[in-house]
Amino acid sequence: MAQTQMLGLLTDFGLRDGYVGVMKAVTLSIAPDARLVDISHEIAPQDIEGGAWTLGMAWRAFPVGSVLLCVVDPGVGSARRAVALAAHGRVFVGPDNGLFTYPLDDDGPDDAVEPRCVALDDPRYHLPTPSATFHGRDIFAPCAAHLANGTPLGALGSALDPATLVRLPIALRPRRKGSVWVARVAHVDHFGNLITNIGAELTRRALTHPLAHISLAQQEISARASHFAAGPQGEPFLLQDSSGALAIAQRDGSAAQALGAQRGDEVILRGLADMEDVG
Amino acid sequence: MAQTQMLGLLTDFGLRDGYVGVMKAVTLSIAPDARLVDISHEIAPQDIEGGAWTLGMAWRAFPVGSVLLCVVDPGVGSARRAVALAAHGRVFVGPDNGLFTYPLDDDGPDDAVEPRCVALDDPRYHLPTPSATFHGRDIFAPCAAHLANGTPLGALGSALDPATLVRLPIALRPRRKGSVWVARVAHVDHFGNLITNIGAELTRRALTHPLAHISLAQQEISARASHFAAGPQGEPFLLQDSSGALAIAQRDGSAAQALGAQRGDEVILRGLADMEDVG
Amino acid sequence: MAQTQMLGLLTDFGLRDGYVGVMKAVTLSIAPDARLVDISHEIAPQDIEGGAWTLGMAWRAFPVGSVLLCVVDPGVGSARRAVALAAHGRVFVGPDNGLFTYPLDDDGPDDAVEPRCVALDDPRYHLPTPSATFHGRDIFAPCAAHLANGTPLGALGSALDPATLVRLPIALRPRRKGSVWVARVAHVDHFGNLITNIGAELTRRALTHPLAHISLAQQEISARASHFAAGPQGEPFLLQDSSGALAIAQRDGSAAQALGAQRGDEVILRGLADMEDVG
Repeated sequence: MAQTQMLGLLTDFGLRDGYVGVMKAVTLSIAPDARLVDISHEIAPQDIEGGAWTLGMAWRAFPVGSVLLCVVDPGVGSARRAVALAAHGRVFVGPDNGLFTYPLDDDGPDDAVEPRCVALDDPRYHLPTPSATFHGRDIFAPCAAHLANGTPLGALGSALDPATLVRLPIALRPRRKGSVWVARVAHVDHFGNLITNIGAELTRRALTHPLAHISLAQQEISARASHFAAGPQGEPFLLQDSSGALAIAQRDGSAAQALGAQRGDEVILRGLADMEDVG
Repeated sequence: MAQTQMLGLLTDFGLRDGYVGVMKAVTLSIAPDARLVDISHEIAPQDIEGGAWTLGMAWRAFPVGSVLLCVVDPGVGSARRAVALAAHGRVFVGPDNGLFTYPLDDDGPDDAVEPRCVALDDPRYHLPTPSATFHGRDIFAPCAAHLANGTPLGALGSALDPATLVRLPIALRPRRKGSVWVARVAHVDHFGNLITNIGAELTRRALTHPLAHISLAQQEISARASHFAAGPQGEPFLLQDSSGALAIAQRDGSAAQALGAQRGDEVILRGLADMEDVG
Repeated sequence: MAQTQMLGLLTDFGLRDGYVGVMKAVTLSIAPDARLVDISHEIAPQDIEGGAWTLGMAWRAFPVGSVLLCVVDPGVGSARRAVALAAHGRVFVGPDNGLFTYPLDDDGPDDAVEPRCVALDDPRYHLPTPSATFHGRDIFAPCAAHLANGTPLGALGSALDPATLVRLPIALRPRRKGSVWVARVAHVDHFGNLITNIGAELTRRALTHPLAHISLAQQEISARASHFAAGPQGEPFLLQDSSGALAIAQRDGSAAQALGAQRGDEVILRGLADMEDVG
């Protein structure tokens, strides 16, 4: 069964310099049977928020028992902690800088089990004489590989209270303000789709309520579709993204470009005044 | 032998968003012993023709028994069919939108066996409650993984006549018009090489016939070389591409840039007036 | 143990066209148990020097016994030799054009063993009827795969003196000129860090000597830090890169952009006049 151990990788290293290859070679040297799966190495340099969102979208696809090795780490070498977090049946390995905000805050399939966390402070699981600038290679990859090999979390370092981990100071959930919901663009994907932070339940209601509509970048969007090809031609429309979130798309084009919108932009959801606070 | 089962992946998802990683995690959850091989995830968004060409170039390198999972799918969620096509000893899994034009039309090594096709309409081989926007994750990856595990094609859904599959309305072969051949640029690669749709046999004759030459973008190209470094400096030249096709290259530079040419541009082959129609 | 055989890949093929996937499919057809690890496929087209640097940075992370398959090959099809070089316990496979300059010149962990080299001239280890334009697929990948399978180096072709291999005419080591060291920018990475060719020993001295400073692009740089987050805000500073080299970085930004610097630029190290020639 060791052979099916999956180890996901997410970094902002890019694919040009060879740093990802180095990290993988270190990982496989320690855990030769791990199945490495790239999530992304194209997170914008030092964009912790982008890394956090991408991890938040992807981690559920990895089976229970998987290790997620995540390195977006502008604070490498500083006092920021290096951690491994066991949550939802997976183990997340990386710097304590907010990268794990989503698995920390999201509901998950194994929530009966309390999350556990350690600081990666036992040098026996690091490469000898770690550098101050490449903990992906020297600390995170070896620790993730040892976890993939079955080393228990507690062996890697001293216990930490998961509640002390850094969470990004971003509103992960839309806020209700009187009769409207104030949300935001949480991600702009490769196709130019704008994915909001409006979750599955509120999205379903917004898409079925006849009066619901979105304001974004001084435009009102009320067209909706169940899938991309059913959207109207030449104007942005609402649909439910594959993660359940409310998204704004444009057929055969980029909604981001059409609307001049970007991550962080405010999204106002109107027309659901009578709704419960479903978040 | 399960361990050597190869599963090629081709998408237009890009490498930034993590969608490819999600699809791979789903695949390996079902088929942990499959060997995943990326063909490309940088097909331009929704560029079915580009995906088709790339698949057409690459599939022969995958051994008989391989599964090719291909998702360039602007029609996801619509009535377009999801299919698996067994042809040339491989199985191609993806949307029925023309992506499989080349394996459908090309000669191949196993042509004694008739192609077979099914619609992927048996939900037992999908993820539970598939989304309407990410069939790569919810339908194509699980079906490809089950095929890699040895599930017979026929189990995945109802039989389809391969002749009913969508073929791209592009001329895959050059047309003869009087004394000339009208061909086109089928692909512009990363190095700026212009790869035409002129096949191996006609290419060999064009490169050996002293009077043969090409017109493209109002320029005549008659220089030729057996390999890149043998080409003339500073002017485009003809050579036989690694797939057998006629290509136009430029030493230490991009022929596409030098000629201002792009995919779809007309290519006229002259000087072979006496030739048979070899296509 | 065959299962843990690592095979690193480095090319300038890019990830769009599918050429890398073809090369991998060929490799795994021959060596199904090899663990493929991408170093980079985003070396700039035909940039042998960039490929050489990246390989030089990465190879040590691959365990002894690994095969490194490297194809940056503008001379494909010409008289340039195709080679396999056994050095430092690894085998490097690719064109003889300078790509292996660093493993040839660097000290390594297994230097008691003399490097050995062969020309890949035995066609039994190539694909049948190799093209003149894609030796990555037709010669290098099959040879690398056979090596990964345990085929002895000597079987692949005739012995070559490693001293005859092409070395890049770049100064791999800084030169001393009176009281200064003349070095250069050897690489600009994805984060915009400028990595010099100043090695670990001289770097350690430069970073601890109070008077040491760098001139680059008509600016003097004397600030230094042990890691990125400890650097000053808004000005470039010196630090030791993860490979040991002296690097110039900028916090939350790109030193390359800030200084308008690029690979090859001269870097003058001053203030160490009394030092030994440590290189």
